[in-house]
Amino acid sequence: MSNRLPTLAVVGATGAVGTVMLDILSTRENVWGEIRLVASARSAGKRLTVRGEEVEVQALAPEVFDGVDVAMFDVPDEVSKEWAPIAAARGAVAVDNSGAFRMDPDVPLVVPEVNADQVRNRPRGIISNPNCTTLSMIVAIGALHRAYRVTDLVVSSYQAASGAGQEGIDTLHDQIGKAAADRTLGSRAGDVRAAVGGELGPFPAPLAMNVVPWAGSLKEDGYSSEELKVRNESRKILGHPDLRVAATCVRVPVVTTHALAVHATFAQEVDAAKARELLASAPGVVVQDDPANGEFPTPADVVGTDPTWVGRIRRSIDDPNSLDLFLCGDNLRKGAALNTAQIAEVVAQEFIQG
Amino acid sequence: MSNRLPTLAVVGATGAVGTVMLDILSTRENVWGEIRLVASARSAGKRLTVRGEEVEVQALAPEVFDGVDVAMFDVPDEVSKEWAPIAAARGAVAVDNSGAFRMDPDVPLVVPEVNADQVRNRPRGIISNPNCTTLSMIVAIGALHRAYRVTDLVVSSYQAASGAGQEGIDTLHDQIGKAAADRTLGSRAGDVRAAVGGELGPFPAPLAMNVVPWAGSLKEDGYSSEELKVRNESRKILGHPDLRVAATCVRVPVVTTHALAVHATFAQEVDAAKARELLASAPGVVVQDDPANGEFPTPADVVGTDPTWVGRIRRSIDDPNSLDLFLCGDNLRKGAALNTAQIAEVVAQEFIQG
Repeated sequence: MSNRLPTLAVVGATGAVGTVMLDILSTRENVWGEIRLVASARSAGKRLTVRGEEVEVQALAPEVFDGVDVAMFDVPDEVSKEWAPIAAARGAVAVDNSGAFRMDPDVPLVVPEVNADQVRNRPRGIISNPNCTTLSMIVAIGALHRAYRVTDLVVSSYQAASGAGQEGIDTLHDQIGKAAADRTLGSRAGDVRAAVGGELGPFPAPLAMNVVPWAGSLKEDGYSSEELKVRNESRKILGHPDLRVAATCVRVPVVTTHALAVHATFAQEVDAAKARELLASAPGVVVQDDPANGEFPTPADVVGTDPTWVGRIRRSIDDPNSLDLFLCGDNLRKGAALNTAQIAEVVAQEFIQG
Repeated sequence: MSNRLPTLAVVGATGAVGTVMLDILSTRENVWGEIRLVASARSAGKRLTVRGEEVEVQALAPEVFDGVDVAMFDVPDEVSKEWAPIAAARGAVAVDNSGAFRMDPDVPLVVPEVNADQVRNRPRGIISNPNCTTLSMIVAIGALHRAYRVTDLVVSSYQAASGAGQEGIDTLHDQIGKAAADRTLGSRAGDVRAAVGGELGPFPAPLAMNVVPWAGSLKEDGYSSEELKVRNESRKILGHPDLRVAATCVRVPVVTTHALAVHATFAQEVDAAKARELLASAPGVVVQDDPANGEFPTPADVVGTDPTWVGRIRRSIDDPNSLDLFLCGDNLRKGAALNTAQIAEVVAQEFIQG
């Protein structure tokens, strides 16, 4: 194989995650030769900037994958389901950020800091990128798992509006605008709902000045799809099919960056100071944990950054084998575009190193 | 003892909880003879309405407790610490909503739906009202405990600004007003912080468009006082000194009504449908749990109501002995004024029944 730089296609270049992706490709160390931008026919012909150069967006069609080495997909599940296999059939390695293939046993689910080695186990030529909520904790949990072997996770999420796409962001801003007009809101049942009006966007209840215990679609036994993803994807990424996971996913009025409160139980006794050191030295993790000085991660301070931020690291008072943590991760960066870019870069090494 | 209606004193009548208390005393079935309103010297002479009548506020002094049967205290810890014993020495039963006496072994910590019988065990003449976060879940957890015997609780809170008093409410409204002016906020680290400016009020970080993993003061091993209260008060109220509790307390941009995600483990196998029935028939609990129709409790819809609302009732996928729940309770009503009023009414029966 020649020592050339591989060709990349970005499918869904004009979407919310695609936009962050172009920024990430422009700022990370470049490993790509040509970068092709692909979107629906509606966006074809648009010119977008990546690596400082204007590139014309091409309409999604089988031929756009000819000569492509790696194709990233930041598109809805049904588009990935149809088109990732087409890209793979044309010789590209498809790195898919949708939910279409995550639990397919022939598709690896990869977080480079945790299981980069899985990238090569891709009989279908497809690699999946995990859900943003799982990604907001799994780099840190993976580091603790390597040291202590995790047995149980209890996860409560504080998920941002942008997890529901640009419509989620717009809806939250609209609602905050309406709620801000009345300083008496928030003390009578339904007064926020009345102020916000019927404009709920992708959310099942008002999100401004509220929290909504729902994300995704309804699955068996009252679980939301998001809660099942946290469980099933954590097990697959950690290669730990016996891991017990209980998740409750809740949307909060934050634009971008998911936060999670995690109660993690391990096969052995843990020590908070040692866990703090271990997390601080883990790639992709930043520890911010000094409550005496008001230091802990919050979404508004973490948004736009790459790492998983961890604070409030405590050994559980009543269980020496458990840790309680509070984590934040930008759901559009590490939770989506960044991790996809990282997976693609691992694949790119195969072409560069030959 | 005569069959007369007892005399009540409300100490702290002009505060945030005191204001809700006057509303509650005006709308619940009346069990009181005279109601005296007491506050700091600064507020003395003010006229407030209770039970439809104007009453003049008296300045806090030992003599205001003469002839008082029950004295409610909705004041800071240090004021309760000094004045509740004075009221008790003058013959009143003090019902205290501060943290001053909650863990005193000679002071019962009472939630009438759970342990009304403890009201009579008051060697100091003082009865404590629990913290608002504990109160937002303990009626529902108590009902489940009676049926299944709880062994472990993992609690993640979504706590409202009013838990930090009127200053918390005002700060959140101020910040939302500033944040609403810029629709691009929330996608760059620190942009919300910059928009809000230095006006953090009682919170250690911006609360608008953010969540803040901190409530209360710093205690040993990185715990917040709020997290220790959830653990220690739950144990005392349930009379269960071996209960294992892990809590992470997080403030969210909601004005009033605390929400909690709770993972509860029991001594026996549980069934979600049976738990739902059991909670639906428990006094003080309302079940709202039909996600197929978008039905689950949210703070904006629960605020201003009396019960503990429970939704998202699921048996944990990987543990047949555990339930996952999402609960909401108005932190100024059941979480403070209402529970205090309920305790005082239990005491009032002693005077009425003779």
